[in-house]
Amino acid sequence: MIDFTLLGTAALLPLPERALTAGFLRYQGVSVLLDCGEGTQTAARRAGVNGIGVDVIALTHYHGDHIFGLPGLLQTMLSMGRTEPLWILGPEGLERELRPILTLAGPLPFEVNLREMGKGEGLSLDQLHPLWPSEARLTAIPTRHRVPSRAYVFSVRRAGRFLPEKAEALGLPKPLWGRLQKGDRVLLDGREILPEDVTGPERRGLKLVFTGDTSPCPALTEGAEDADLLVSEATYGDDQDEGLARERGHMTFAQAGRLARDAGVRRLWLCHFSQKLKDPEDYLPAAQAYFPDALCGTDGMSISLRYED
Amino acid sequence: MIDFTLLGTAALLPLPERALTAGFLRYQGVSVLLDCGEGTQTAARRAGVNGIGVDVIALTHYHGDHIFGLPGLLQTMLSMGRTEPLWILGPEGLERELRPILTLAGPLPFEVNLREMGKGEGLSLDQLHPLWPSEARLTAIPTRHRVPSRAYVFSVRRAGRFLPEKAEALGLPKPLWGRLQKGDRVLLDGREILPEDVTGPERRGLKLVFTGDTSPCPALTEGAEDADLLVSEATYGDDQDEGLARERGHMTFAQAGRLARDAGVRRLWLCHFSQKLKDPEDYLPAAQAYFPDALCGTDGMSISLRYED
Repeated sequence: MIDFTLLGTAALLPLPERALTAGFLRYQGVSVLLDCGEGTQTAARRAGVNGIGVDVIALTHYHGDHIFGLPGLLQTMLSMGRTEPLWILGPEGLERELRPILTLAGPLPFEVNLREMGKGEGLSLDQLHPLWPSEARLTAIPTRHRVPSRAYVFSVRRAGRFLPEKAEALGLPKPLWGRLQKGDRVLLDGREILPEDVTGPERRGLKLVFTGDTSPCPALTEGAEDADLLVSEATYGDDQDEGLARERGHMTFAQAGRLARDAGVRRLWLCHFSQKLKDPEDYLPAAQAYFPDALCGTDGMSISLRYED
Repeated sequence: MIDFTLLGTAALLPLPERALTAGFLRYQGVSVLLDCGEGTQTAARRAGVNGIGVDVIALTHYHGDHIFGLPGLLQTMLSMGRTEPLWILGPEGLERELRPILTLAGPLPFEVNLREMGKGEGLSLDQLHPLWPSEARLTAIPTRHRVPSRAYVFSVRRAGRFLPEKAEALGLPKPLWGRLQKGDRVLLDGREILPEDVTGPERRGLKLVFTGDTSPCPALTEGAEDADLLVSEATYGDDQDEGLARERGHMTFAQAGRLARDAGVRRLWLCHFSQKLKDPEDYLPAAQAYFPDALCGTDGMSISLRYED
C-alpha cells in the first residue's frame, strides 16, 4: 500500500488558501517528500503527515517555489532532534543548487546525502538504505521545463502468488517457504532456489507518478503508463493558454487530461494551479473531456493505493 | 498615523494556526516589514497587507525563523514586476548572512540595498529615499540574544502647533506659512526662518517598538520609553522558564510585562510564542500582573496609532 498526500496545489506563489505544490508518500515505513517550496513544512503539519521524519526528498527541479522550504525544514528537523540520515535527490546541478540552502540551514546533526538522478535513472529503495524495501523503486523521468527537470515514478513490484505445489515438487522444507515468499533466494543442498521458481507470474504492483513542472512529453507518457495515480501539473485552465504553457514549460488542464488518457492511468489528480485560477474546478471539464475521472487536487487530499486483490 | 499589523506570532516553527513572528508597518505611504520568516509573504496576504510592495525590510537578527522567507518574497516581488528599490536593514554581518539568500533569489530587476544598523544607530526615512518623510525614524536598539540582534524603534516626531501670531510678528507673508508648517525652512529677505520660530513646543509624536528575539535589557527598556505600542517577544509562558529564557536569549510573559511597565509604554502586544504554548491566553495573567492591559498578539491583529489630538 502506498499512502499519498497532496500537500499543496499552487504554482509560483504560496497563497493563504493554497500551499505550493508538493507531495508526500509513504510505503512500508519509508517516506518520500516530492518538492519542498516555502510553506511545505506547514502544509505537512496541516495535513497531519510527518514532514520532519521524511527519509527522502525528491526535487523535480530547482525553481524557488519547489525548494525554498528546504532551509526551514532542515532546521526544523534539527530542532526536533533528528539524527537519521536524509537523502535529497534531484536533476543535474544538485550540489551547486543546494549549496546556498545548506549554508542557510547551517550545521546539521544528521547526514544529508545528495544523489543526482540522471535522465531516466531509477533506484530501488534498498540502494539508499539496506533495510528499505527492494521492491519499491524511484525513477526520474526527464521532463520538459525551462531548466533541468524530472518527474518521479514511485513503483512497487509485486511478486507472483506463492505456489506450494512447486515448492513441494522441489522438495523444499516448509520453514524455507517464508523466505522465498519474501523474495529471498535460499540454498537447498547446495542448489540455489529463486523466488520465481516457486511463484506464479509477477502480479500488478503499484505505481504513482508526480510530474513536477513540465510540458507534455513522450518520456512522461511512457513513464506514467498504467499508473494507479498520476499527479500532474496543470498550471493553466484555459485551452487558449496552451502557447503560454509551451513557452513556460507547463501544461493546460486539457493537456494533463490527454496525458492521463494516453498513458492509460487509473486516476488523475491535477495540481500546480496558476494563481489566476480562482477556482480550479471551473476548468475541470477541459481535463475531463479527455479523462472523465480527472480530479482537481486540493491541499491535504490523500489516498491509499492498494493491490488489486 | 502608523498602521501596524502583526503578521505572525510563532517562535522557531511555522504552525498552521500561527505564522512565524513578523510585523508590518505603514506610515505616509512607506512600508516596513519587520523580519521575514518562512511563510511571512503568505501571512501578509492573509492579513491583507501588501508585503510585495514593502519598501524596507528590517531584520532583528539572522536566525532562520526570521529570514528564511526572504528568498521567496524577493522572487514574488520579481514575478509581480517590482521595479522600486528595496532596503534591507540588519545587525552586523548583513552582507555575509544575506549572500546565500540573494544567491537563491537570483538576479532581480530592482535594487536591493543592504544597510547595516550599528548598535543604537538611527536613520530618518529621508536618509533612505529623499521623498520619504524626514520626521519618521527607525532606530536599531542592541538587544540580548545569542547572536547579534536589534530591536527596532519606529518613531515619528511631531512639530509644535503653528502659531500665526509669531508668523505675523516676523512679517511672514501667508503663502510661506504652509512650508514652515510642513517643517521646511524658508528665506525671507535673506533671513532664514526655521519652523521652530513659528511653532509652539514639539508635541508628542508616535512610537512603536518591535523587540525581535531578546532577553530583557536596559537598552530595550530605555528605547521603548513611552512607546505607543510595544510588540514584545514572550517566548515562554511560565515564570519557571525564566532560566531557560535567559539561556536562550528570550523572555517570559512576566518579563515582557515588567519591561512594558518599566518603559511606561501605552500598549503591550505579546508574540513569538513557543509552540509549547497551545493557547498563549492561558499565560496572559503572568504579563498582566505587571502590565494590566497586556494583550496576546494574534496573526493579523492590527492597529492604527494616531496622534493624541
